Amino acid sequence: MYCLFKFAPLFLALAVCQGWLFGDFVGKQKELDEIALWPLPQKFQSSAAAFKLSHSSFQIIHSKQSSAGPSCSLLENAFRRYFEYIFGDMKKQEKSRKKAYDSDLAELQVWITSADPECDGYPSLQTDESYELSVDQPSAVLKAANVWGALRGLETFSQLVYEDDYGVNNINKTDISDFPRFTHRGILLDTSRHYLPLKVILANLEAMAMNKFNVFHWHIVDDQSFPYVSRTFPELSQKGAFHPFTHVYTPSDVKMVIEFARMRGIRVIPEFDTPGHTQSWGNGIRDLLTPCYSGSSPSGSFGPVNPILNSSYDFMTQFFKELSTVFPDAYVHLGGDEVDFSCWKSNPDVQKFMAQQGFGTDYSKLESFYIQKLLDIVASTNKGYMVWQEVFDNGVKLKEDTVVEVWMGNNMEEELQNVTGAGFTTILSAPWYLDYISYGQDWQRYYKVEPLNFPGTDAQKKLVIGGEACLWGEYVDATNLTPRLWPRASAVAERLWSDKSVVDVGNAYTRLVQHRCRMVKRGIPAEPLFVGHCRQEYKGL
Amino acid sequence: MYCLFKFAPLFLALAVCQGWLFGDFVGKQKELDEIALWPLPQKFQSSAAAFKLSHSSFQIIHSKQSSAGPSCSLLENAFRRYFEYIFGDMKKQEKSRKKAYDSDLAELQVWITSADPECDGYPSLQTDESYELSVDQPSAVLKAANVWGALRGLETFSQLVYEDDYGVNNINKTDISDFPRFTHRGILLDTSRHYLPLKVILANLEAMAMNKFNVFHWHIVDDQSFPYVSRTFPELSQKGAFHPFTHVYTPSDVKMVIEFARMRGIRVIPEFDTPGHTQSWGNGIRDLLTPCYSGSSPSGSFGPVNPILNSSYDFMTQFFKELSTVFPDAYVHLGGDEVDFSCWKSNPDVQKFMAQQGFGTDYSKLESFYIQKLLDIVASTNKGYMVWQEVFDNGVKLKEDTVVEVWMGNNMEEELQNVTGAGFTTILSAPWYLDYISYGQDWQRYYKVEPLNFPGTDAQKKLVIGGEACLWGEYVDATNLTPRLWPRASAVAERLWSDKSVVDVGNAYTRLVQHRCRMVKRGIPAEPLFVGHCRQEYKGL
Repeated sequence: MYCLFKFAPLFLALAVCQGWLFGDFVGKQKELDEIALWPLPQKFQSSAAAFKLSHSSFQIIHSKQSSAGPSCSLLENAFRRYFEYIFGDMKKQEKSRKKAYDSDLAELQVWITSADPECDGYPSLQTDESYELSVDQPSAVLKAANVWGALRGLETFSQLVYEDDYGVNNINKTDISDFPRFTHRGILLDTSRHYLPLKVILANLEAMAMNKFNVFHWHIVDDQSFPYVSRTFPELSQKGAFHPFTHVYTPSDVKMVIEFARMRGIRVIPEFDTPGHTQSWGNGIRDLLTPCYSGSSPSGSFGPVNPILNSSYDFMTQFFKELSTVFPDAYVHLGGDEVDFSCWKSNPDVQKFMAQQGFGTDYSKLESFYIQKLLDIVASTNKGYMVWQEVFDNGVKLKEDTVVEVWMGNNMEEELQNVTGAGFTTILSAPWYLDYISYGQDWQRYYKVEPLNFPGTDAQKKLVIGGEACLWGEYVDATNLTPRLWPRASAVAERLWSDKSVVDVGNAYTRLVQHRCRMVKRGIPAEPLFVGHCRQEYKGL
Repeated sequence: MYCLFKFAPLFLALAVCQGWLFGDFVGKQKELDEIALWPLPQKFQSSAAAFKLSHSSFQIIHSKQSSAGPSCSLLENAFRRYFEYIFGDMKKQEKSRKKAYDSDLAELQVWITSADPECDGYPSLQTDESYELSVDQPSAVLKAANVWGALRGLETFSQLVYEDDYGVNNINKTDISDFPRFTHRGILLDTSRHYLPLKVILANLEAMAMNKFNVFHWHIVDDQSFPYVSRTFPELSQKGAFHPFTHVYTPSDVKMVIEFARMRGIRVIPEFDTPGHTQSWGNGIRDLLTPCYSGSSPSGSFGPVNPILNSSYDFMTQFFKELSTVFPDAYVHLGGDEVDFSCWKSNPDVQKFMAQQGFGTDYSKLESFYIQKLLDIVASTNKGYMVWQEVFDNGVKLKEDTVVEVWMGNNMEEELQNVTGAGFTTILSAPWYLDYISYGQDWQRYYKVEPLNFPGTDAQKKLVIGGEACLWGEYVDATNLTPRLWPRASAVAERLWSDKSVVDVGNAYTRLVQHRCRMVKRGIPAEPLFVGHCRQEYKGL
């Protein structure tokens, strides 16, 4: 009574199984249309046998064998969250439970198999996110080594549940064995070009979890504003934010973002980009930036971080020491992109320093000089680092565990080849700059990218650990960010999670239409792919 | 103590006056940055003398000479609305008023000068929207022939008020004489490709009033769905809407839209496009659409309205009779665009009819035959009509007062020349299809359009009565419509209201940045133009 499909589109698979099992194909088809897994699991079996779920009897519980129990608040929170996704906010999990009927699915047992469930830990690059999910009567069982895999499985379980014509929740007999293809699946949000209220960040972390993204790359500061409130250097945001009180992230805001993300298995990697992209830093920290010259006198404007002063490195030492305690992730993103040399070139002190160091007129050597010192500073805080590709391109000596982010679209394949050829892990964001918008279904373009489609050995391919969808902030803020990001980023989510063979755009469309309605139902204003409607339209504005 | 500027950018004008009047130019400049009129009035004088407005003493009242009084609920509602825009929702106009201080602006007197203020009327193509506004101590006076001009003046008055550094509302001594350059300034929303909840439509009517738009072109039905609930033919929406209960506009919904629009001086012109774009009509009305043939037998699919059956015209007669009572505006939009002839060509009965009528194989003659009969039907309901340009292009005989809408971008100038050359009034939407999105500040492209830039006599130019920004619905619904429309449509608003000479994009940028923050403050999620921030960011998601 089973159909086995490995790496096949679930939606079609179910429809086919279904026709095989039942006479009334058309009638039942409608129900099964409601099931649309996104991203598609690696392996699954499904049957047309359906069980009902009642909000007054169904429960999500710790299995007896599980190493986690009610004290695991990460899971307890997730149980409540997914219960509410399935049954709606109004129907709380009641104290006085009713008995399940024989035809019901009575419970989902969550079984954490390893000795340490990591309830109070943080996800990392090494995190095992795999899980196994078996839905059968009277219990479904979700098995994972730790809470991180359990979170992914809970999302999948919730996606398997569908409403029939009477509004009754159903789930089909199903077996799933799932794991991500890539370990780094990120979203970059930019809170410098526009300030994003906390509410917007948290809502997008919710949406990320719905799409099994696991890294929030927080491009928190840049030229335009410095909203990060530093305990060590409060003047950075006091003078560098759009507004020192209303447009900042306080230490408790940052903590909340990190904890909210952790509860959803999402790493928070902050980016503090230097030596370029630092105009807003200069407002608060005297002498940090290089004074530009117009002829023989200072022009009044400033360039990148001043690389010739010890005070710059003293500042960075203190600042990154603070960051290493604020952000628990093992990595911090150090930027290093798009350094403009014109200001350095104009400054006579910098010129003198160049001569002393024997750099000639090659300012990329000065850039490397700065970055090298910064990397050593950060390494001394016991953090690993991520950098934009220029840092690698300029020949800076990088720690072995550095993650190089390839963002330039013009020469992407060669760059992947070079970075991995040099033995560095890399992530890809070049094809996924979602701030570039156009008319029509551009999600398909993002979907069709194959990250390993570059010349290289198997060992090189293994060094590509994932990618990121980047929504730079020049044209987005709280008014339009969420619908612009979703479901376009969902295309990237499936590319980074599902098997390489999952490439059918037509099937993806069918599932994604439903997945976006599911996001809308859960309160995320994900924009439509094309003409049509959701059973429940967005309630906000 | 006055600076007089006619047709000059107010923002700069004020800054200049300001420097002239005060020593502390820089300090005061900041206050005046807050004033950004959009669209820019036709004539104004402004001085730097500023008066304060207190929420506990300031009031908006009917002047003693006014023909309108407290029984004019349109104005009473507008007074409350603008009071709340100025002072925030929390601060209600209290019963026990305090006395205004000598330095305050105590009141705005609204003076309707004509005998009939039109409190219970509807705006029309002939409506006089001009107004005069004089702000001085102790009273400001807003003078208009009728309520419609008063509404425009109230918007302008509210835009003149700015908060100083202490959060106190100020307004400068000002004289404004204003009127629209074009009489038809429309927004097209499409509720067929996606259903738009009432809330979304109403919010966008609010935003339209903030931009002095005065026509809501409601593209209410199309191929994809038929959400309009007809009393005469309820089966149209029962079978043609995405959902017969949740995705429809009931008679009371439609009434609410019309009344909400009326209160803001906005005409509602519904579009019922035939004979093409009617797939959804065919679900409810048997035999309305032409059966397409595949060889000698019906293919099962349907084409445009069947033009050879009397029943089609009987239906249209009844249906448009209903519409003529539901929609008070003197015009209804009959569409008539993009008729695909392939189905008609395939149908043997249509072929026979063509021969009988002596149309040969020229199916545009059949199209004209249909349209001609429809126009006569609609004319018999005492309505005027608007049509898309094809109807004119195909040589259909049109009533003298027909408004032809030019939407094709490829040959726009020639089309304007032809339509006006034939003596028809016309509106332009070709350059303003806002559903086409692209990266960056495309509002500038919309802003730079000069609608009268086509070869023709003065008499021809006078026939161009305005234009419309069209947001077709293929890719927009409740999740993303409002930020996609605003402030991009604001560019069209100023082009259609302000003087021809108002073309400075740099100045427009400065004002529009503030105007969009004003919309955000009033609850409209208008997206950012570029990097920056609003004092109050959007509170929703």
